[in-house]
Amino acid sequence: MVGADQATGLNDMEPDTFRAAGHAVVDLMADYLAGVERYPVFPPIEPGSLAPDFPSEPPESPEPLSAILDDYVRLIEPNATHWQHPGFMAYFATTASGPGILGEMLTAALGQNAMLWRTSPIGTELEGVVVGWLRQGLGLPDTFDGLLTDTASTSTLIALGAAREALGFGAAADGLPGRPDVARLRVYASEHAHSSIDKACMTLGLGRAAVVHVAVDETYAMRPDALAQAIAADRAAGHMPMAIVATIGTTSSTAIDPVAAIADIAEREGLWLHVDSAYAGFVALAPERRAAFEAWERADSIVTNPHKWLFTPLDASLLLTRRMEDLRAAFSLVPEYLRTLDREAPVRDYNEYTPQLGRRFRALKVWIQLRWFGLEGLRRRIERHIEMAQAFAGWLDADPDWERLAPVPFSTVCFRWHPVDDAGGVALDSVGLDDANARIMDAVNRTGETFLSHTRLDDRFTIRLSVGNLRTEPRHVERAWALLQAAAATEGKATP
Amino acid sequence: MVGADQATGLNDMEPDTFRAAGHAVVDLMADYLAGVERYPVFPPIEPGSLAPDFPSEPPESPEPLSAILDDYVRLIEPNATHWQHPGFMAYFATTASGPGILGEMLTAALGQNAMLWRTSPIGTELEGVVVGWLRQGLGLPDTFDGLLTDTASTSTLIALGAAREALGFGAAADGLPGRPDVARLRVYASEHAHSSIDKACMTLGLGRAAVVHVAVDETYAMRPDALAQAIAADRAAGHMPMAIVATIGTTSSTAIDPVAAIADIAEREGLWLHVDSAYAGFVALAPERRAAFEAWERADSIVTNPHKWLFTPLDASLLLTRRMEDLRAAFSLVPEYLRTLDREAPVRDYNEYTPQLGRRFRALKVWIQLRWFGLEGLRRRIERHIEMAQAFAGWLDADPDWERLAPVPFSTVCFRWHPVDDAGGVALDSVGLDDANARIMDAVNRTGETFLSHTRLDDRFTIRLSVGNLRTEPRHVERAWALLQAAAATEGKATP
Repeated sequence: MVGADQATGLNDMEPDTFRAAGHAVVDLMADYLAGVERYPVFPPIEPGSLAPDFPSEPPESPEPLSAILDDYVRLIEPNATHWQHPGFMAYFATTASGPGILGEMLTAALGQNAMLWRTSPIGTELEGVVVGWLRQGLGLPDTFDGLLTDTASTSTLIALGAAREALGFGAAADGLPGRPDVARLRVYASEHAHSSIDKACMTLGLGRAAVVHVAVDETYAMRPDALAQAIAADRAAGHMPMAIVATIGTTSSTAIDPVAAIADIAEREGLWLHVDSAYAGFVALAPERRAAFEAWERADSIVTNPHKWLFTPLDASLLLTRRMEDLRAAFSLVPEYLRTLDREAPVRDYNEYTPQLGRRFRALKVWIQLRWFGLEGLRRRIERHIEMAQAFAGWLDADPDWERLAPVPFSTVCFRWHPVDDAGGVALDSVGLDDANARIMDAVNRTGETFLSHTRLDDRFTIRLSVGNLRTEPRHVERAWALLQAAAATEGKATP
Repeated sequence: MVGADQATGLNDMEPDTFRAAGHAVVDLMADYLAGVERYPVFPPIEPGSLAPDFPSEPPESPEPLSAILDDYVRLIEPNATHWQHPGFMAYFATTASGPGILGEMLTAALGQNAMLWRTSPIGTELEGVVVGWLRQGLGLPDTFDGLLTDTASTSTLIALGAAREALGFGAAADGLPGRPDVARLRVYASEHAHSSIDKACMTLGLGRAAVVHVAVDETYAMRPDALAQAIAADRAAGHMPMAIVATIGTTSSTAIDPVAAIADIAEREGLWLHVDSAYAGFVALAPERRAAFEAWERADSIVTNPHKWLFTPLDASLLLTRRMEDLRAAFSLVPEYLRTLDREAPVRDYNEYTPQLGRRFRALKVWIQLRWFGLEGLRRRIERHIEMAQAFAGWLDADPDWERLAPVPFSTVCFRWHPVDDAGGVALDSVGLDDANARIMDAVNRTGETFLSHTRLDDRFTIRLSVGNLRTEPRHVERAWALLQAAAATEGKATP
């Protein structure tokens, strides 16, 4: 039955209706989170199969909330990829934690637009507080300031936009084309760097061709000698080197570029150094794990994502930088002479640092999470994820039929089935291995208990198991291992 | 007291704890929405006064949820700018409606990343459904496809990125600088167009200088003759015209650019036409109001924001386009020949159309809202907002001491106090009028009952009253009028 507020109302949902509906929805949410394991992690459906379940024309008249929520349970929830499932070990995990979800609820009700101090004083000032807390938690000096963005793609775009501006030829004011004084710009990142760097260069008008993919060593980390050579070659060719992106925790294998050596080159060459640690950054909450982050404090900018390993609901990316003024020069439309007319102290308006004007109040959920977990609680959970992945890597290493394909500095393991024959040799050629491993991964994913993804390392089909979901316990990783072995026993034999 | 899940836990908040906490938070939210009118719309605080209320160091240990929620009520809620308040008539309203908030709650719990079909089948397919519903509701033909983005800034950036790519010189692949074949690019928009166009041009590497701000007529609408002249002058100067942005509902005065005449020019000149109707677009849900949108179906792309006049919680912007393939060419990193290897039917992966990779599941809240309100319920509410603004404009027009400064095609009124003296002349010079009106607006805002913003029209300080909040009723607009008159009586006399 539709309410009077629906049938003839001119206002919002009635407050009492909202309260009752909110409680009903919380029960749906709590039921989902408590029972998410009953779903297959990835739903057994084909593309295009869902849209026909919905009317092709928009609803003209209001419908009862109960009907909408029934459809939610029937049509929406089962057809999600269950990122909240403890068996989700694909890509990098994004858990929306309980306290983070509470934060999103309050954020939605408050309806802040944190674009200006004036449009959200608390949204603006709490962002400063939370960015400071995260910076200290990561062990970075107070020369770093920063902000929260939606995604690592945007954070990296902002960093590279600032690097472009820092070249000093007035990119934001006068643009790039039609200028004899501006040569082709160049950004250096490893062959294993994330596609967001290429995408940022497309968006910023540098083009995909601006990204020089530097060769990696046997651990898939950038080779500083190859970096130096690439820069020298570009300078010789008349190009204009702009920035280096070093990754701590690459997407394929979580490799660690040698930031200290890269920072030396960046300083010598006068280039902006951006560190992409979108996945791994919050491992640095633990001082005893900071060796992996050596020298990252020498970067001009660093991105790491609360919506990955800090268990914050999507979206929240943290961009830290020692060069906040370069960000503002790249993205602000407020001329300097207008900035302090109104007030004694300059006001920080975060939209001046981003491509977007409107901004969600993302600091609230992070603030709630940091207080509910405490830094110690976050460290404990991250540490367990690393331990679970290390244990899995140990099982692989102890089994002659499986091969680990990369170091495991964090919580992501790259591997393949690689059976030895009776003579101790490899039983399949490289094509056979690729086919068998693809079948094994598909078979495991079809069980619905575990969801894995893959990559290619040295042109080998590589299965990835990445631990980072708050609900994943040792038994889930053990089960994934059992499923992999079972799949290898059946699929591995089914060589076409 | 902290729970065991906090003190020693390795997992998420316990399900029962989450359920109880969720119910407590829903009550906070419902209390807030039911009683938001008790707060001053804009909090009586100065910049920098809030951060000192928070510890400067991050919390090491977990804290009880009750303490966190107490601080929320004490430190966060009162220091928000209350966009949900019925007296919020500044900028353009963004109401987070009840059903929209329910949608955000479910979105947070589901934790989808709708970047790929595979990472969220329902997030992907429901987005297609909802975009189709909105398109039909707006009366646009099925040649328009589209997607949901975070903000109008991003939607416009995407549209202009596609326009850049459509020029055919391979901007995404090869970039803009250092190319003799690429002249300075030009984008045309009225003097009153939104700053997001300038910002998009900065980000895209065209530079602020690429935006040609075309002169307006006496209604603040773009003059097509001036547009044609500007394009001709740029071509003569060797520049490369790229796109025209026409606005239906400008930010200052909600002026309507003559889209039909502009579309003629765009077609003749071979330029991309983008229509910015971020604020006003959903007025077109009412067929009898579509005169204001004449010819917008001739645009290559259109942006309108559910998080403005569709009452959707921030963020949600709708980008519609007849040229989806140009968007993909501008932002996709997947080469064409790889697209259909895996499956019979091509899969839509929305990240291929945006600068970001990660994406929230924004379609869910829009789907819930459209069903709860129905199109008829949305039309009814939008119509009442327009009626309230028209009534206010009528009161101004009937009072000789007030002056309306622009037409009121939608729900935003631009005006100033403009007292006549005993001889029937204006009692103040232009500086005196500016000062008096600034004082009047500040006095009204200090009451906490109404929150207004200002602009400048023909270099006159102009107060804006914009109706668009779901809770605003005629009595709130009447009260704003009374407060303005009272402020004029006191502040108007206080000429320095």
